[in-house]
Amino acid sequence: MIETPYLLFLGDAPDQLAAKVAQGIKDWRPEYALGQFRMDGCKADMKLPDMDLAQAYEAGARTLVIGVANRGGVISESWKSVLHAALEQGFDIASGLHSLLAHEADLVAKAKELGRTLHDVRIPSVKYPIANGVKRSGKRCLAIGTDCSVGKMYTALAMDAEMRARDMKATFRATGQTGILITGDGVPLDAVIADFMAGSIEWLTPDNDADHWDLIEGQGSLFHVSYSGVTLALVHGGQPDALILCHEPTRAHMRGLPDYQLPSLEQVRDTGLALARVANPACQVVGVSVNTQHLDDAAARACLDEIEARLGLPTVDPFREGAARLVDALAAI
Amino acid sequence: MIETPYLLFLGDAPDQLAAKVAQGIKDWRPEYALGQFRMDGCKADMKLPDMDLAQAYEAGARTLVIGVANRGGVISESWKSVLHAALEQGFDIASGLHSLLAHEADLVAKAKELGRTLHDVRIPSVKYPIANGVKRSGKRCLAIGTDCSVGKMYTALAMDAEMRARDMKATFRATGQTGILITGDGVPLDAVIADFMAGSIEWLTPDNDADHWDLIEGQGSLFHVSYSGVTLALVHGGQPDALILCHEPTRAHMRGLPDYQLPSLEQVRDTGLALARVANPACQVVGVSVNTQHLDDAAARACLDEIEARLGLPTVDPFREGAARLVDALAAI
Repeated sequence: MIETPYLLFLGDAPDQLAAKVAQGIKDWRPEYALGQFRMDGCKADMKLPDMDLAQAYEAGARTLVIGVANRGGVISESWKSVLHAALEQGFDIASGLHSLLAHEADLVAKAKELGRTLHDVRIPSVKYPIANGVKRSGKRCLAIGTDCSVGKMYTALAMDAEMRARDMKATFRATGQTGILITGDGVPLDAVIADFMAGSIEWLTPDNDADHWDLIEGQGSLFHVSYSGVTLALVHGGQPDALILCHEPTRAHMRGLPDYQLPSLEQVRDTGLALARVANPACQVVGVSVNTQHLDDAAARACLDEIEARLGLPTVDPFREGAARLVDALAAI
Repeated sequence: MIETPYLLFLGDAPDQLAAKVAQGIKDWRPEYALGQFRMDGCKADMKLPDMDLAQAYEAGARTLVIGVANRGGVISESWKSVLHAALEQGFDIASGLHSLLAHEADLVAKAKELGRTLHDVRIPSVKYPIANGVKRSGKRCLAIGTDCSVGKMYTALAMDAEMRARDMKATFRATGQTGILITGDGVPLDAVIADFMAGSIEWLTPDNDADHWDLIEGQGSLFHVSYSGVTLALVHGGQPDALILCHEPTRAHMRGLPDYQLPSLEQVRDTGLALARVANPACQVVGVSVNTQHLDDAAARACLDEIEARLGLPTVDPFREGAARLVDALAAI
């Protein structure tokens, strides 16, 4: 668990897109985003107060989150003086970069000397159990996609925000590094040992109040041959009561697999539901979330209407119109 | 890759069952099983020549395989003098025990000093790629089960033996520790990091002659919530041309999951085939392998006949009657 609130480190980000982790935190957990730290030449701006380390610590920030990814996902030498000063100021540091804080001997030594924690959220920090399949109390919703990177995390976060706004009991459960940095906790599922994947998701979504919903961040796709095993572990470890189908309608082939066509939403519905009912016979598919960012307004509307008519399920783009109709569908079961 | 042939270390095995790894090697790769090493009190006997270390080395053995599992899967202190002497004699050591050779500092130091290799086959020794889904040449067969431990490895090994006897081109591809020790190579799939599972199976079953069959050892079950993700990685990484359905007809519930019933063979066929065709649209289900060890002869015959009539597929217990009909079915596609 990463201590909040955060100071968001934007470093020398070459553009706004490079700081998408910081953007995610600011968008979805603004209460964690006390301020931003920008180095000379930084081209990203979260429209947060610029703070130096002392100001941020004084304001209550306790973790410096590396909110920027540079080329190669490495920890830049030019950042090092800031990271050292942050440890000295009293901050922990959290990173989702491919290169690990734990492999930077100077930072490790400094953190140890000062009693600070370095969080590498790509690496599991918990010894997860093997899944036992025992039915848990509370309710769970999982987004499953026709492909990778079609908006599953965004959908779950948008539903979580809508449910909080309605004072419903809901918790976004992160399963990837961006989600973990946004919420401060979660399971980096793609880095978990095979035998413990489903167990890690049981651990992440424990018994809860009968009217509480876990909104589980999806990963991969049952139809993506590189990552489908990860997806099935989510389906079986998560015991979802509700599935949301996620889709990106303009994609020419499966991400990274030029020879593979996307499955239809009907295939994802039927295969996903059959497998989900192994763990939870009451599971239902309740809605569809479509990422229409590459369509203009009229084409997006037509796409959503066509899918809604075809599948007979509430179909929205949560970025354009919010997740209210998906939450209505959850609330109805 | 473990150097062959082997001297099988039976230690102080309390009974024959404790030496089932040694039994598997002797049954399936007798040419690797030069001899056995038994300590005082050993109650297992592979009916192999009893050899001391010098005799076995002289006869050509190059690896001492720990063919026995004691309670807890630990490396017994009473074995240590033999293991040290084996390293001194010139042997590598291979183990599939839960406790690792690599965690025994004295063995590690001795092996390093002498230039020997300690093989812990539960731990991946390769940096596997992420699966790319590219179609590979050659043919592949995968056994998928209604549950864990229903005879998938046995089925693949029996088919491999039958195909070798017919001079067909075939390779058993091990995905678990027993299979790896039997053949000297493979992927310990349950210990692979989630993102690389399917890629490890692509790596294990590379391009091959058009008439060559990989017989891929199955793991878990698509319907076993603890391990289903591992199974789906085999289905998608293996790109099977042929699936064999495996079943144990007397099981009251899924292994380790008292609240879960076994799926029907029809469910495994339909779900498995739909998922397999994502990676290989030509995939077919060609036969059924039933483990009838808990049935008497008449009940076994009736069970096999009933399933064969119901599914319309050649149905055998390879332990009772060999795998010839399954191989006939493979040869026909």
